[in-house]
Amino acid sequence: MTTHAFDQAIALTAQADGSFQGHTSPAYANMVGPYGGITAAQVLNAVLQHPQLLGEPVSLTVNFAAALADGPFTVLARPARTNRSTQHWVLEVQQQGQAVVTATAVTATRRDTWSLDDAPMPQVAAPEQVPLPKAQPPLALFKQYELRFLEGAPPEVLDGSGHSSLTRLWCRDHPARPLDFASLAALADIFIPRVYIRRSAIVPAGTVSFTVYFHASAAQLQTCGSGYLLGQAQAQAFRNGFFDHTAQLWSQAGVLLATSHQVVYYKE
Amino acid sequence: MTTHAFDQAIALTAQADGSFQGHTSPAYANMVGPYGGITAAQVLNAVLQHPQLLGEPVSLTVNFAAALADGPFTVLARPARTNRSTQHWVLEVQQQGQAVVTATAVTATRRDTWSLDDAPMPQVAAPEQVPLPKAQPPLALFKQYELRFLEGAPPEVLDGSGHSSLTRLWCRDHPARPLDFASLAALADIFIPRVYIRRSAIVPAGTVSFTVYFHASAAQLQTCGSGYLLGQAQAQAFRNGFFDHTAQLWSQAGVLLATSHQVVYYKE
Repeated sequence: MTTHAFDQAIALTAQADGSFQGHTSPAYANMVGPYGGITAAQVLNAVLQHPQLLGEPVSLTVNFAAALADGPFTVLARPARTNRSTQHWVLEVQQQGQAVVTATAVTATRRDTWSLDDAPMPQVAAPEQVPLPKAQPPLALFKQYELRFLEGAPPEVLDGSGHSSLTRLWCRDHPARPLDFASLAALADIFIPRVYIRRSAIVPAGTVSFTVYFHASAAQLQTCGSGYLLGQAQAQAFRNGFFDHTAQLWSQAGVLLATSHQVVYYKE
Repeated sequence: MTTHAFDQAIALTAQADGSFQGHTSPAYANMVGPYGGITAAQVLNAVLQHPQLLGEPVSLTVNFAAALADGPFTVLARPARTNRSTQHWVLEVQQQGQAVVTATAVTATRRDTWSLDDAPMPQVAAPEQVPLPKAQPPLALFKQYELRFLEGAPPEVLDGSGHSSLTRLWCRDHPARPLDFASLAALADIFIPRVYIRRSAIVPAGTVSFTVYFHASAAQLQTCGSGYLLGQAQAQAFRNGFFDHTAQLWSQAGVLLATSHQVVYYKE
């Protein structure tokens, strides 16, 4: 059995000093440096593999301080505070001794409470009814995902005619892979820069800070198997070189698994 | 001229070792420990006062690892990476040598680009037309803010009859104070736990992680003076002890100044 490209990409080796060693993955190469979602998954994996881990991920914030160079990197993961049922993580990815990513995470042991999805899944066509795109951006990372766009696909004509920043798509790993926290974190970054969609224009852009809130337990993720997730993202403000977006990821059964936000640099 | 309670609360003293010393403010006391918004403002203030600061705030994530005890605290602020136009900050608040808050921030020098508000301000009544609440929760912090609820006020009857998690309100410091990054960060946390609103019930709850994206420059904030901001917050998912919300803050003139997200622990 071959290891999935995703598992190869997020593999980390524990070092004697407590840090983790990883390596950028050519399979997840983006325009400049690796896909931010894979970096987020690598960072989260350091928490998930940490011998002192308490509970499961609740939140993850990853700040992209510099484009990762192709090659090895070190993840430093420190539980800054461990409470009875929550744990606070401070993380940093370094290359050549320099910070390329800063991050924080919260993990927790969760228990059953009153629960409610307050952002219902939009009514959309089933994944099987949504065709694959005729063409994908020529980037390695898009070979690792199956994306079926319902709305807000990458613009086919770059004529400045865009009028909405909303994207809705069915997505999953390609080849399909059972969902877990790491792959969910990576999928939460699957939305191409909103500035492309809103303007029907390609503008140099890169995520600066990315947050994921995990609403599902490991057991709930397991029940999703390798099914599709419905992803939705929409910008809120584009202003003087930075824009933000909010995003949601529902299971095909309509359970809100994760919500996400990011602020993105754009050049002009 | 008396110093505004907000300025007193966020005052920090630079220490010889590069850290900052602050003190919790009784004026901003919440149910357990200080108001999270004032803690966020104190953390941001360490960045704003730091001699190595580059640019203005773009994003701030504050993780509440433990309730701050009344008394002094230390803020550690480290520019983990300084690029040409962006800077990445790693922050920690300590009491008795223990982490009570972890945080990251991104600052940047911004330049004029194509810009657009993609989340338009809702059409609502002017602040002067919206009455002050007859009663406020009996907490010190609510004396420091003027809140005029349009929708989703704190429930008057705790009978489980809630049906929406949406709050809209006009808000500003009380007494009025010219808006700046620190007060904007604090205002971004002004929304009482969505679980109260959605359920019309009081449930023990506390913010775990809080993020603010700043869309305005210092100059844009200055033009707001001490005017009202329109705040909006809505939950996305309540699940097994944690819920999230997204929030927006517009100037009275309709400019989206900041967007925010948080994930909140709730007990049952």
